[in-house]
Amino acid sequence: MPSDALSIARDLVRCPSVTPADAGALGVLETLLKGAGFDVHRITFSEPGAADIDNLYARIGTTGPHIAFAGHTDVVPPGDEDAWTRGAFSGDVVDGFLYGRGTVDMKGGIACSVAAALDYLAEHGGQPGKDGDGSISFLITGDEEDIAVNGTVKLMQWAAARGEKFDHCVLGEPSNIEELGDCIKIGRRGSQSGTLYVDGVQGHVAYPHRASNPIPDIAALITALVSEPLDRGSAQFQPSNLEFTSVDVGNPAANVIPGQARAKFNIRFNDHHSQESLRALIEARVATAAGNRVQTRIVWEPSNADVFLTEPGPFTDLLVAAIEEVTGRKPELSTGGGTSDARFIKDYCPVIEFGLVGQTMHQIDERTPVADLERLTRIYRGVLDRYFA
Amino acid sequence: MPSDALSIARDLVRCPSVTPADAGALGVLETLLKGAGFDVHRITFSEPGAADIDNLYARIGTTGPHIAFAGHTDVVPPGDEDAWTRGAFSGDVVDGFLYGRGTVDMKGGIACSVAAALDYLAEHGGQPGKDGDGSISFLITGDEEDIAVNGTVKLMQWAAARGEKFDHCVLGEPSNIEELGDCIKIGRRGSQSGTLYVDGVQGHVAYPHRASNPIPDIAALITALVSEPLDRGSAQFQPSNLEFTSVDVGNPAANVIPGQARAKFNIRFNDHHSQESLRALIEARVATAAGNRVQTRIVWEPSNADVFLTEPGPFTDLLVAAIEEVTGRKPELSTGGGTSDARFIKDYCPVIEFGLVGQTMHQIDERTPVADLERLTRIYRGVLDRYFA
Ligand SMILES: [Zn+2]
Ligand SMILES: [Zn+2]
Repeated sequence: MPSDALSIARDLVRCPSVTPADAGALGVLETLLKGAGFDVHRITFSEPGAADIDNLYARIGTTGPHIAFAGHTDVVPPGDEDAWTRGAFSGDVVDGFLYGRGTVDMKGGIACSVAAALDYLAEHGGQPGKDGDGSISFLITGDEEDIAVNGTVKLMQWAAARGEKFDHCVLGEPSNIEELGDCIKIGRRGSQSGTLYVDGVQGHVAYPHRASNPIPDIAALITALVSEPLDRGSAQFQPSNLEFTSVDVGNPAANVIPGQARAKFNIRFNDHHSQESLRALIEARVATAAGNRVQTRIVWEPSNADVFLTEPGPFTDLLVAAIEEVTGRKPELSTGGGTSDARFIKDYCPVIEFGLVGQTMHQIDERTPVADLERLTRIYRGVLDRYFA
Repeated sequence: MPSDALSIARDLVRCPSVTPADAGALGVLETLLKGAGFDVHRITFSEPGAADIDNLYARIGTTGPHIAFAGHTDVVPPGDEDAWTRGAFSGDVVDGFLYGRGTVDMKGGIACSVAAALDYLAEHGGQPGKDGDGSISFLITGDEEDIAVNGTVKLMQWAAARGEKFDHCVLGEPSNIEELGDCIKIGRRGSQSGTLYVDGVQGHVAYPHRASNPIPDIAALITALVSEPLDRGSAQFQPSNLEFTSVDVGNPAANVIPGQARAKFNIRFNDHHSQESLRALIEARVATAAGNRVQTRIVWEPSNADVFLTEPGPFTDLLVAAIEEVTGRKPELSTGGGTSDARFIKDYCPVIEFGLVGQTMHQIDERTPVADLERLTRIYRGVLDRYFA
């Protein structure tokens, strides 16, 4: 059986596709999907100062409803390869586990979705939907793990420009915490970084009355900003959180009071905020804490990580039912953790994330139970059955 | 008159003796002092990693009472020489002002003390004291403005090793604030630097509960340390003061909570403290503020700048009387400002600082009124008259 999830996953893992390398990974998918009748596009995106990146878009069917499976074939570096039980790109199966970089994040998830789609199509005369009414597509990028400028963000724009309309999307990131079926991500917090500057007056430590030291002032502002919660959380989200990531002056002279201090921070914010309202809130709090005496300014980083939420409803219910059928578990609908490419998809259609168990992702000996590959394939198959029922 | 203060000062200013260069400056003094009968020693001190530095010790007389004039012939760099009204090493006199780097800090002060001594000796048969009982000496270094490792600290050790005993010392640093006679320094605060480290637990900003961010903790410690005064000042000193001079993390990753933060500080401390008691006080306050939760440690810099105080008494009275006679002013007895080489002299004999007006020191167009050179020479002469009376 050439299209079972394990064999697809092994073929993918054996391509050492550390970002920005593709190493043949998209070609594995292209061959399989073309063989099943998909219309397959390979698109290369470029950006000054960044490596060119290969992406893949494949669709079968021409009408709605249109469900897309999204994912990335690039992986993070293997780290110390000598520390691995089996080669990081070996695809070896040991004691029921498939070993290798990307097995859970997220070549395994892609393999299961492809296997499920091919299985579904084989049973339905090669066409999605009851009477050939419906579309299945794959949105696969090679640029997720690094700066992510030539990946999903551009692939969605490219697809929209050629008139592709998506009704729903499943992103196969490793969403489960401990066991397959324990968690679906229905949203992610937004991310916004900035730098707080405090300007004082430089001087000599022996004459502090002629200087204005910005260090106690920035310390007080840091305390003020971390002391007051940004919110108390929302129906689907934990409270927004601000973390200072650096504070720097860089003054090497022990007898000099510096003229400026700066502190970098990152905020993970929930659906109480937009980027704009969040910036205004922080600026108001800094202004209040600084008063008239302290000179401050905030420089905001550009951010493409807005908060997103796919409200619980028929689409999430459908996935939950498929998960319960296979695993017997009722998954948590979570919005925790870091950002993902779902932030780029959410502007085009509702998106939820469900894949393998993330425990070993990005680590030495990343691995997945082979049984999870089989069960995740059945879950995705259950999604397709329900979606086109 | 070859030994008037102006001509000596001009000869010194024309030597571009930016630390560590001597550029002939000590030779100017050697010639003059030998000519007046002084026993003159030139001593070169070395230190690994530092430039060799010339120093001069000259004494006339073999018994006590023994008064020493101390000073340095090295100067700070001139900065932008094109910005000077006259060349930084020209020694030009314009509108009654002698221009040049070092005119007030402190070649002018040295010139006045040499001129006063030569004048005194010429009137007293070439010997100090009533019946030739007494000694005058000069302790002149070329290493004060920079790291000061091969200067007065070693010169005092060298002199002590050969049995030199000093009863009193006048250091000719520019002690006056606005007008000649307005201020004598009878002490200086000590200086102690250190670095406060806070260790947290590194992590990802999306999972702050798995990390421990040291930045809010160090901010709170900074606030605690600057909020509580170290003391309320003493009879002769203003309150001790702690200034943070830098705070640094150096984390470039916007999504990483750092594992460590550090803050550098400098304390100028008065005679309520020794270095040891001060360190213990700061460590106790940090421990209290940190509690059991926050991991902190302080690394102290080696410091050779202990607090010193020459208590007001007959020696300060003598200088005050000489100043009043020439200027009509009663000088303030101050302990403010930065450190000086007096910190190295105070272990051997009482030392006070009195010289020219410091306003233009270390600046473009450093300059002194020629009249101040004449008056300071008369003041030093008045000191010698009273000292040996
Ligand atoms: Zn991933
Ligand atoms: Zn000086």
